[in-house]
Amino acid sequence: MSTSELQQHFPDGLTDDGFLSGRLQILQPRQGYRAGADPVLLAAACPAKPGQSVLEAGCGAGVATLCLGARVAELSLTGVELQEKYAALAQENASRNDQALTVYNADISAIPAELKARSFDQVIMNPPFFDRSRGSSAPDAGKDIALAGETPSEAWIDLAARRLKPKGYLTLIQDIRRLPDVLAATLSRLGSVEILPISARTGRKAHLFLMRARKEGRADFILHAPLITHLGPQHEKDGESYTDQIRSILRDGSVLKFP
Amino acid sequence: MSTSELQQHFPDGLTDDGFLSGRLQILQPRQGYRAGADPVLLAAACPAKPGQSVLEAGCGAGVATLCLGARVAELSLTGVELQEKYAALAQENASRNDQALTVYNADISAIPAELKARSFDQVIMNPPFFDRSRGSSAPDAGKDIALAGETPSEAWIDLAARRLKPKGYLTLIQDIRRLPDVLAATLSRLGSVEILPISARTGRKAHLFLMRARKEGRADFILHAPLITHLGPQHEKDGESYTDQIRSILRDGSVLKFP
Repeated sequence: MSTSELQQHFPDGLTDDGFLSGRLQILQPRQGYRAGADPVLLAAACPAKPGQSVLEAGCGAGVATLCLGARVAELSLTGVELQEKYAALAQENASRNDQALTVYNADISAIPAELKARSFDQVIMNPPFFDRSRGSSAPDAGKDIALAGETPSEAWIDLAARRLKPKGYLTLIQDIRRLPDVLAATLSRLGSVEILPISARTGRKAHLFLMRARKEGRADFILHAPLITHLGPQHEKDGESYTDQIRSILRDGSVLKFP
Repeated sequence: MSTSELQQHFPDGLTDDGFLSGRLQILQPRQGYRAGADPVLLAAACPAKPGQSVLEAGCGAGVATLCLGARVAELSLTGVELQEKYAALAQENASRNDQALTVYNADISAIPAELKARSFDQVIMNPPFFDRSRGSSAPDAGKDIALAGETPSEAWIDLAARRLKPKGYLTLIQDIRRLPDVLAATLSRLGSVEILPISARTGRKAHLFLMRARKEGRADFILHAPLITHLGPQHEKDGESYTDQIRSILRDGSVLKFP
């Protein structure tokens, strides 16, 4: 799909947004699922080494995968995306940023044989989560699918367990409300599970979590001290208040090491 | 069983230990499962109101239940304990501290009909956990059973789900390594699950967790900021270094409110 063809699939148009201080320029739908800090944190937390293979399940416009590709050299990058127009967008975003990315337009529960035949050193994912308890559904159908979370956690973890090489890592970021079912799904499939809770301020409950798990891992479960994203006890009006660590991840593409 | 009969069941003898600054005097086996801070924290975290009914599953020598009875007035206290000699010890400890406690000597997976006919406002538990990966089994058979964790988390959560009244609370304390399977077991049986991680020092990984869950609860899952037990970045040689909050719980029997 050309950029003009892509535009036709997003009637409200696309925006061209900078990530990692503009090192990446990403086309995103003006109205729809728009990437924030989450995919950047996900990419920062993936322990990929140069030359490894990475699969992103539900890659959307490709922000997490392309952030990872910007940090770690010579990765072999692959994405799976349910919605055709987002799959095309991810492909276009890879080209625009001079990265090689193969995107499969498929449901994660029904991937093509060609992908079934492959295995990966790393799998990353930010499974959709839409809080139906808040009532109103998303105004944009693409966003609704991206956030609806109709595919249960088991299917996401199953994909990772099947596609990872032995000793390969899954890295996942998710709304904290899904921690119980993500852990339940992971329990019998992957090992060496570590949870890094993410809180906006010191002393606050967590709103997000990062999970790292290893295929055939045997280490004890670890719950780390929370990663704090903002300085001070509450929101300050004057400017951003990210901690140095978070600013370095979002602006400079620094790695997020698990403690 | 009289105290002298009890002594015969514990060949290495019993010690008489003070809890809550000596408000409770508890007989415990010199060699065997000995209560530390965990049952005191469990009792402090139980949101029981005066006059309510409380069931402790796996009550051991009764420390958690009796700490709770010392804090909250006019509770109806019941325990279940697999090992006959510990059940007798809990009964004796209740008498010594002028508390009324009914102890059933039974496996939590096979409780007597009389107990099956009852329901409770609160269930508390500190399920046994023995880290078999550390190799050597416990030298004392009673301790081994108390720590072995042969009964899976599902059976403990099942007991709570069945014996709680609608809107009743389960409060549980456990080694952090069991968080995934405890959450998995709780997921479909109880709601409004809250996890309070417990860490020795600020910034350290959690070693324990408290869980609160509610029968028929519908609130979102919450992961709270960790409860820190000790001051400073590391162990100090000179004296204890508990935080004020933990000291107040252990010494004064203060309540531990979830944030």
